[in-house]
Amino acid sequence: MYPDVCLKLPEWIAEEVGDPARCYATLEERMALAVRLAARNVVTGGGPFGAAIFEIERGRLIAPGVNRVVAEHCSLAHAEAMAIMVAQQVLGTFDLGRADLPPLELVTSAQPCIQCYGNLWWSGLQRVVIGARREDVEQLTGFHEGPLPDDWAGKLEHRPPLHPIAVARDVLREEARAVLRKYAQSDGPVYNPGE
Amino acid sequence: MYPDVCLKLPEWIAEEVGDPARCYATLEERMALAVRLAARNVVTGGGPFGAAIFEIERGRLIAPGVNRVVAEHCSLAHAEAMAIMVAQQVLGTFDLGRADLPPLELVTSAQPCIQCYGNLWWSGLQRVVIGARREDVEQLTGFHEGPLPDDWAGKLEHRPPLHPIAVARDVLREEARAVLRKYAQSDGPVYNPGE
Repeated sequence: MYPDVCLKLPEWIAEEVGDPARCYATLEERMALAVRLAARNVVTGGGPFGAAIFEIERGRLIAPGVNRVVAEHCSLAHAEAMAIMVAQQVLGTFDLGRADLPPLELVTSAQPCIQCYGNLWWSGLQRVVIGARREDVEQLTGFHEGPLPDDWAGKLEHRPPLHPIAVARDVLREEARAVLRKYAQSDGPVYNPGE
Repeated sequence: MYPDVCLKLPEWIAEEVGDPARCYATLEERMALAVRLAARNVVTGGGPFGAAIFEIERGRLIAPGVNRVVAEHCSLAHAEAMAIMVAQQVLGTFDLGRADLPPLELVTSAQPCIQCYGNLWWSGLQRVVIGARREDVEQLTGFHEGPLPDDWAGKLEHRPPLHPIAVARDVLREEARAVLRKYAQSDGPVYNPGE
């Protein structure tokens, strides 16, 4: 009687990712994928955000993600959320920090908003790697980030009894900013419900 | 190449809801449904949380939700998130505050955690009605709520340029607490990834 919620990545995602077995050695290589996904998402009518889940040590890609809010009629379908949910389907668990898994991280082209911050908190991920800053998102595009808690990064890095989530920032920030700027110039929709 | 994310409500949900055309006049009637869904979810192996989206004025039910984290391998699938996502599928929009829709609200058996707080922020909903308090959840079950921003309720009620989200608390709090207590007594799993 009530519909299922079926969220899909765009059809182009596998082609854009390329070799699924490739290992991404550096944070910059991993971020370059997230930024490329964000850029392609803009061209195909989506929001200017890309993300991916990687094995921290080996750099193996577990799942990509792009913003699918408008396409999927789902305000939760931010790029980070899509990457986390797809990774959980790939690995068959709600806990990406499960003891038999290698440590995993979220790489995201822009700072997580309040919603994605919450997603990260319960994901089991052990690091977040961020491209553009909050002020880049808000000033360049008009998207809001919401009421992140004070010292949001420090709270990730120290949250007993939960394991810490390390934070790396400003990785390829300029490249990530360029996608946001391009989105603004393309007059893409800025969908802040309630504005 | 990457799996879709298909999230389903449990098979019993339509039966538990009963008459789908019923209008729920009072906040207590609406909360009674959320609490009943939470209680049934416990009996069937899920987390002790229930929620629903209603039309504020008429009390018409748009979508129910229960916690599906373990069943669906998805750390995002809290009761509030399920209700929001199903409502967005029912109405065919990511924006539950769209101008042609009546004002809608989230009724939840327990205070939203950091993740559900973020979901609420971008949902377009115009009110949240809460049963059990944060301390009820944390003390009775051991589930954490995460780093909600200071004055989380005030920030919902005043967030220009976005419309306000009104907050009603302690609705059927004792009934909602009873479900949490029952869950703890049943030795249900407390899945805080990373603990």
